[in-house]
Amino acid sequence: MVGAVENVMASVSGKVNGAVEILRGDFDSTAVVAEPLPPVVEDNESLRDFEEKEEDAKPKSREIVLGNNVHTSCLAVTEPEVNDELTGDQDAYMASVLARYRKTLVDRTKHHLGYPYNLDFDYGALSQLQHFSINNLGDPFIESNYGVHSRQFEVGVLDWFARLWEIEKNEYWGYITNCGTEGNLHGILVGREVFPDGILYASKESHYSVFKAARMYRMECVKVDTLTSGEIDCADFKVKLLANKDKPAIINVNIGTTVKGAVDDLDLVIQTLEECGFSHDRFYIHCDGALFGLMMPFVKRAPKVTFKKPIGSVSVSGHKFVGCPMPCGVQITRMEHINVLSSNVEYLASRDATIMGSRNGHAPIFLWYTLNRKGYKGFQKEVQKCLRNAHYLKDHLREAGISAMLNELSSTVVFERPKEEEFVRKWQLACQGNIAHVVVMPNVTIDKLDDFLNELIERRSTWYQDGSVQPPCLVAEVGKENCACALHNC
Amino acid sequence: MVGAVENVMASVSGKVNGAVEILRGDFDSTAVVAEPLPPVVEDNESLRDFEEKEEDAKPKSREIVLGNNVHTSCLAVTEPEVNDELTGDQDAYMASVLARYRKTLVDRTKHHLGYPYNLDFDYGALSQLQHFSINNLGDPFIESNYGVHSRQFEVGVLDWFARLWEIEKNEYWGYITNCGTEGNLHGILVGREVFPDGILYASKESHYSVFKAARMYRMECVKVDTLTSGEIDCADFKVKLLANKDKPAIINVNIGTTVKGAVDDLDLVIQTLEECGFSHDRFYIHCDGALFGLMMPFVKRAPKVTFKKPIGSVSVSGHKFVGCPMPCGVQITRMEHINVLSSNVEYLASRDATIMGSRNGHAPIFLWYTLNRKGYKGFQKEVQKCLRNAHYLKDHLREAGISAMLNELSSTVVFERPKEEEFVRKWQLACQGNIAHVVVMPNVTIDKLDDFLNELIERRSTWYQDGSVQPPCLVAEVGKENCACALHNC
Repeated sequence: MVGAVENVMASVSGKVNGAVEILRGDFDSTAVVAEPLPPVVEDNESLRDFEEKEEDAKPKSREIVLGNNVHTSCLAVTEPEVNDELTGDQDAYMASVLARYRKTLVDRTKHHLGYPYNLDFDYGALSQLQHFSINNLGDPFIESNYGVHSRQFEVGVLDWFARLWEIEKNEYWGYITNCGTEGNLHGILVGREVFPDGILYASKESHYSVFKAARMYRMECVKVDTLTSGEIDCADFKVKLLANKDKPAIINVNIGTTVKGAVDDLDLVIQTLEECGFSHDRFYIHCDGALFGLMMPFVKRAPKVTFKKPIGSVSVSGHKFVGCPMPCGVQITRMEHINVLSSNVEYLASRDATIMGSRNGHAPIFLWYTLNRKGYKGFQKEVQKCLRNAHYLKDHLREAGISAMLNELSSTVVFERPKEEEFVRKWQLACQGNIAHVVVMPNVTIDKLDDFLNELIERRSTWYQDGSVQPPCLVAEVGKENCACALHNC
Repeated sequence: MVGAVENVMASVSGKVNGAVEILRGDFDSTAVVAEPLPPVVEDNESLRDFEEKEEDAKPKSREIVLGNNVHTSCLAVTEPEVNDELTGDQDAYMASVLARYRKTLVDRTKHHLGYPYNLDFDYGALSQLQHFSINNLGDPFIESNYGVHSRQFEVGVLDWFARLWEIEKNEYWGYITNCGTEGNLHGILVGREVFPDGILYASKESHYSVFKAARMYRMECVKVDTLTSGEIDCADFKVKLLANKDKPAIINVNIGTTVKGAVDDLDLVIQTLEECGFSHDRFYIHCDGALFGLMMPFVKRAPKVTFKKPIGSVSVSGHKFVGCPMPCGVQITRMEHINVLSSNVEYLASRDATIMGSRNGHAPIFLWYTLNRKGYKGFQKEVQKCLRNAHYLKDHLREAGISAMLNELSSTVVFERPKEEEFVRKWQLACQGNIAHVVVMPNVTIDKLDDFLNELIERRSTWYQDGSVQPPCLVAEVGKENCACALHNC
């Protein structure tokens, strides 16, 4: 294409009859450019050894420079040599890259603690399907002519969640999303279509996708304060609702915040709305259950997420508690709301009420497979194990004199941010300000936690040994009762 | 969870020390509900034989009832029996479902013609990676602490496309999306952030995701007429631009429309903008190259898509011409535009400029693998083959007296819609009104086309044999020169 469009390949065109056609007479269907190889933009980007690249990939500092396209970590695509089919050099190169990559994945999966992904799965039985381009284009309930889909699995999974969240088959609509963010984007969009002039309320500890949605959709958005636990502060919510009584309310309720794993009190949110004079036809609640949406039903005392309450939609991630090799999620809403979204069919030129068009058809099969294997009872056991192990971790951190908090309904243990970035990176901890967290998922065993605890306690003794630096006070983040700093630990 | 939250499992909680905590004293970390199995909402949904379900799955009619949650095709998730670990019944059931499903996939893949997916791939070497939860959370150029990612592959793929579209490494930003729709959603969002009061212009044959974006983003949208070929009609575009001279223009340019595979003339679009007095700082062009974005660079005379022209973004699908088991795409834009999008970091609480948060880390590896294997030269050969085969199909359709059109730069053959829905379904043809199309991808061989042609010609002779019905006139859809109806075929 670049600078070499003049040479034309020899004509090998198929039969051309005398019929008039819109193609110009001189068109040669095989007129592809002869030298398609674009010039290399940067010549010094020659292929170096993989390990050297991996070495480069380790960031020297954690500083993030916005708007700077960092190429620290890049495996360049290389053009095969002309005689490659004979030498097999390219295949050998790729095989070696993949083998090394696999090794790093094994290692990183072993030390992973900070993100809520259940890495404990075995989908060997499904590897036979990897060779198909499975695509659930558009609406799961509207047949497409594209035959290579997995809608029958998708609808089975949706029905399972509909039953969990207590909504009849003919009253819900939903689909399997690409991730928790898509669920939030969809839920909030449905809310906005139901209440075009509605104000979006979300606690400030909501996932950033909620605020991204507000900006994308050009919605007015009001941030609500949180309690120390991370839950929405309904006193502040009330003040803000009363200040905007003239407009309908669209509320994002967190079933597990990203950082602290806090579960907003759904019943109190509804009660607050009612107390402020919002009747059920003047608010829309989206429940962001990305993290704990699948755990809550199995935890006693948890505010029950159910469509018997006046909620509009629920989303949950599939790759988190369920475990799945690729990100995915489940989104369920009421059929009546989707009819509002789909009403402008002529304009959209489609009845498709999903955010995406082409949709990964493998994810529903992974979910279907796991739900069948584990069943409700299997998930119950795993929830039990996670809560137990989370308490184990929190208790041992506190015993070691480290500030730590665990919300009642959560398996997210929040604690003092380790001082050494190397340690944070090794254990892949998610950090924010002075705090870090471990999300105890089914693949996080007591053995793994012991390894982590031992290493943390040993390393930490060196960070603060000379007394020149003190561990930070976390009273603002975890409350006085959980803070182990010099001032509060008495 | 349902109606049985009273019973508490026996306490097996871990060590609890005396530290004060925000948990209530009576909290039992293992207090999971004893009977988590929700009641079945519909009892008659007992598990039937898979084949019977598959039978049900075949729609009796093509009628689509909007807002009706059709469960014609559903593989219910079933709860494992208590003694399942002994009997293995559940595993046996799942294995049989999957084996049969695989068989239908093989069959459907064989007869697939209507959708632009290259089903010709072999990713056996990558099956070793299926066991990892690979997630490229957020921005590909900003390191995350989550270690199980494939950013190094992703950046390699992006660099390859940046080189193809002639933009320097330090001047572009991009990411691997979940599908072509996400690319359009992103490109149009960037355009809107650059020109908050801009008007979106798109030809009426643009993909529906473009109009979905306009509605999502609350943008003013002007539909532009098309020529018979399906290309944007720049005369109409000019009239509409002149009517809205006071507002910046955001233009969606199709590099291959969905139905006719028409390629908008990028140069003429730019020229029209200039003629109407729009300087380069008053318009933003997004190129929707979902279908042909990867083919165009290899076709002589095609309007060249390059960042040396005043365009803002380009997107392409990864599962179409490249071929990939799951939907994916590539989105490239200018770094300067992303800085606008990311400017409101405090509000978004994230530097993430992607639409999604969690992102499938397997897709970049599939793309990287194919780009390495095929290289620019491999793609050139495949483009050549597709164009040749598309001409073969079009010519043979016309020879058989069937209305058919093939755009000069396209491998999408548009023709008379087959009268029999069974035939349409078997070959998975995409239809619109009186026309259907076949998109000739690298996996569509002459043999496959011959099978298709023979069957079509044979079946068609029965549809119109008694003369009571005539084949439809397609002059409006494909032009007089391509119409084979009784009136125009003389």
